[in-house]
Amino acid sequence: MTTIDHDLAAYCTTHRDAYLDELKAWIAIPSVSADPAHRGDVRACCERLVERMRSIGLDAKLLETDGNPLAFGEWLGAPGAPTVLIYGHYDVQPADPTELWETPPFEGHVRNGKIFGRGAVDDKGQVLMHLAAIEAHMRTRGNLPINVKVVIEGEEEIGSPNFESALARYRDLIHADVAVISDTAVFSEDVPSLTTSVRGLVHWEVTVHGPADDAHSGYYGGILANPIEALARIIAGLKDAQGRVTVPGFYDGVPELDASERKEIAALPYDDAREAAQLGVPELVGEAGHSALERNWFRPTLECNGIYGGYQGPGAKTIIPSFARAKISARLVGSQEPAHVREIVMQAILAAAPRGVRVEVDSAGDVPAVVLSRDHPAAQAAGRAMQAGFGAVPVFIGTGGSIGPVASFDRVLKIPQVMIGVGLPDDHIHAPNEKFDLSQFFGGIVTMTALYDELANA
Amino acid sequence: MTTIDHDLAAYCTTHRDAYLDELKAWIAIPSVSADPAHRGDVRACCERLVERMRSIGLDAKLLETDGNPLAFGEWLGAPGAPTVLIYGHYDVQPADPTELWETPPFEGHVRNGKIFGRGAVDDKGQVLMHLAAIEAHMRTRGNLPINVKVVIEGEEEIGSPNFESALARYRDLIHADVAVISDTAVFSEDVPSLTTSVRGLVHWEVTVHGPADDAHSGYYGGILANPIEALARIIAGLKDAQGRVTVPGFYDGVPELDASERKEIAALPYDDAREAAQLGVPELVGEAGHSALERNWFRPTLECNGIYGGYQGPGAKTIIPSFARAKISARLVGSQEPAHVREIVMQAILAAAPRGVRVEVDSAGDVPAVVLSRDHPAAQAAGRAMQAGFGAVPVFIGTGGSIGPVASFDRVLKIPQVMIGVGLPDDHIHAPNEKFDLSQFFGGIVTMTALYDELANA
Repeated sequence: MTTIDHDLAAYCTTHRDAYLDELKAWIAIPSVSADPAHRGDVRACCERLVERMRSIGLDAKLLETDGNPLAFGEWLGAPGAPTVLIYGHYDVQPADPTELWETPPFEGHVRNGKIFGRGAVDDKGQVLMHLAAIEAHMRTRGNLPINVKVVIEGEEEIGSPNFESALARYRDLIHADVAVISDTAVFSEDVPSLTTSVRGLVHWEVTVHGPADDAHSGYYGGILANPIEALARIIAGLKDAQGRVTVPGFYDGVPELDASERKEIAALPYDDAREAAQLGVPELVGEAGHSALERNWFRPTLECNGIYGGYQGPGAKTIIPSFARAKISARLVGSQEPAHVREIVMQAILAAAPRGVRVEVDSAGDVPAVVLSRDHPAAQAAGRAMQAGFGAVPVFIGTGGSIGPVASFDRVLKIPQVMIGVGLPDDHIHAPNEKFDLSQFFGGIVTMTALYDELANA
Repeated sequence: MTTIDHDLAAYCTTHRDAYLDELKAWIAIPSVSADPAHRGDVRACCERLVERMRSIGLDAKLLETDGNPLAFGEWLGAPGAPTVLIYGHYDVQPADPTELWETPPFEGHVRNGKIFGRGAVDDKGQVLMHLAAIEAHMRTRGNLPINVKVVIEGEEEIGSPNFESALARYRDLIHADVAVISDTAVFSEDVPSLTTSVRGLVHWEVTVHGPADDAHSGYYGGILANPIEALARIIAGLKDAQGRVTVPGFYDGVPELDASERKEIAALPYDDAREAAQLGVPELVGEAGHSALERNWFRPTLECNGIYGGYQGPGAKTIIPSFARAKISARLVGSQEPAHVREIVMQAILAAAPRGVRVEVDSAGDVPAVVLSRDHPAAQAAGRAMQAGFGAVPVFIGTGGSIGPVASFDRVLKIPQVMIGVGLPDDHIHAPNEKFDLSQFFGGIVTMTALYDELANA
């Protein structure tokens, strides 16, 4: 059984209140990268992170990018030891619909052993696990067993559009022997795990233009194509009745799972009915021929994330609206090419445009899927660290989420990576009432504290 | 050529500035019946109307209903002459999207010979034509040639849900020999017209419920049915590719036009391409096999008036939303039964619900279509009055709009009705930048002034 050094463990335990206070302070900064109105908050969050890294002994600075800045800190006082790049993000998802939060999204509130707030686990709390772990080493021993370079970015929630170019610009500064990414969840509270695959991500915004102004549905009903109905037809046509995407070429590069992979996934404790009940839906639904976990980790999706058009207030308003708009995104797997998928879906949408309307499609995002090695010494070290933090050997899993920087590290730095995150599947990330279980938060701090020792010896 | 009494004509001409000032004052009251936040404004508007009717010599009072009150005024000083019921409405459509108005919606602004503002023509300006006409008679001659009962309601824009029960309650007070409704438009500036058919109207609100909270589209993508996509499938399935409603029984009671009716409609000066250009669309579109005017006046529609669900802000948010909602309405013709249509469409929507979501449908509205006589003496009188106001014999037309009270007068009072309105098809009613051409407004005042004399002699 891997355990953690006694003094470090004691330090982590006695500072729990301080960790919570610090996480509350981070949550209080509404660093929403999707909303230009929060640009100032995003920058302020980065500046505070730089100050914080300095306070624990890192040589830290803000690195400008073509978008929101990076918070960068390094400590290189362990000659001969490996240099570990630690990655996280300080930006958060929008908080709306805010009225569904039980406590305000940008205030950390502790209830029932969990801390609630936007960014609690995605990813401020998980960034803080590393700052706390570094601090524990520095205050307890006066140094770290490894060299560290901490890179915390501010655009992960909008697809990290400027991260890869920043990586290229600061390549020499940022280069390391291995990257550690803490922005994922474990399989469940009882099943610690390490994530070895992430899906890719691309986006579209589809606007269907009808009459120049909203038109009276009596005076013009029967004459005008309805933009909402046109958009509905376009969206409905993107999948068949079995949930399979109909766009020709969409599945190019999607690997079929082999029997052993399917068996490994089937062995995990996952109950469709219980999951459906927890999510509040009558049943789980998806592409035919694959189990829920297979679909979530290893099949691509095409998903409508938002739609609006016409009258949305109380009561009725009898109009044919001048436009309707939908936000759509895809999660990619295997070797699906983001640029190719963006293009073919855009063409399919344009080709599906009915008569009488004008359709416009914007697309964005360039995040491919990535699969990591399970056998690299760093992955083995991460397994031992997690055992120290949570008392059990972790299993390897996939995630349905996307972490653009994982692809960027692959493409620019070409270094091995380990994804070690400790969120839970029910953390409501990207949704109202996001939370981080304190047991996971504190266990994560112990895990990261142990991880640095394990990586020094890997 | 029918003309108007010289003194009356002079009165109408010299008071044009006062009419404009008064219309601006009415526009300034945001009597939006669809929005509960404006309930106070709606009532205030009714009270002001009652005061105004008293000031021109009517015996006026506010009549309570189960919803917004009626403004009622009568003058019964012409024994032996017919009693004419004048109908209009003081409530207005919501003004959103307010950012698309060139001047504030609840301020009347005159530009290029038109007055802009919510309710300018629908229906405050047209109600004011009657008040001005009554005033012209009273100030010029000291009396009216007919008995009048003025009923101005406050819920027309939400489908007049309480008008029919109020009519029944106040039947003796309101009863008259003929009803005059001024809430319609002429065919065009050059083609004065009288409307002899209106379509019916019913509403649905469809909500598709998915997960209890918005769910992360990575962590749950591939597992959950997407409420937006489910709603899109439901909407797309309501019509076939030729624009025909697929709900079984929807067309029950829809009369086929005969050759002479089609010929009469085809003779009207209507240019599809010009109409499309004015509306800002590539082409006019609708049910196959019928001309645009046939579709608009004499075919039913099923139209999506609004939709929303998921993320609607700037940028992207990768969620599977917890719900999506659409507002749908139908225009009815012939003997389509509102209650029957509501029920069969609701059943079709529920039957179309895909797996993994829960679908809820609310419905409202009970307005059947109505066809009026062209041969009744009152219709002939209206034709002569319009000739006095606009210098040409009017043609008979239909309208694609719905006026619930026309059906209620039919059902409760069982009296002949004349629809005489003077809006123009491009008035942007129910849309941003609603306007009333001053030439139509002032011509309408002359028309109504002449109408009372014509009805006295009809």
